[in-house]
Amino acid sequence: MARVIVNVMLKPEILDPQGQAIAGACERLGFTGISQVRQGKRFEVEVDGEPDEQTMTDIRQIAQTLLANPVIEDFEVHVH
Amino acid sequence: MARVIVNVMLKPEILDPQGQAIAGACERLGFTGISQVRQGKRFEVEVDGEPDEQTMTDIRQIAQTLLANPVIEDFEVHVH
Repeated sequence: MARVIVNVMLKPEILDPQGQAIAGACERLGFTGISQVRQGKRFEVEVDGEPDEQTMTDIRQIAQTLLANPVIEDFEVHVH
Repeated sequence: MARVIVNVMLKPEILDPQGQAIAGACERLGFTGISQVRQGKRFEVEVDGEPDEQTMTDIRQIAQTLLANPVIEDFEVHVH
């Protein structure tokens, strides 16, 4: 059993109002020194056995079709 | 400028219907060998300068109060 992580974040050029709201709240609460916050999604995918090349290809395919919207989001896949 | 990552995941004992729906979809689409999917949140926090101990303490405080619900979620903070 192994765990593969898929991180999905908005592309840098896409505005992130949720992240902006969090950054604004940090400042109002007195936490200085934070210039930007971006919010994304993290998926923990448990696979049977050790992940081989085929498994990683499958998970990249799943990320592209189910987990991320490639028009506005980038994703990154790695073994935990 | 440095980037600190905050990962927020549901505690293991909390049911994750979104993750279950994704795992079910993977199976229906023919991707076998995936036993579980859990969905969480990932925050990228940009801080001015190199993150020192005070910055990390601040970000842990922000994670606990703004980013995670500690009743049902665990979080983890690390420098990118």
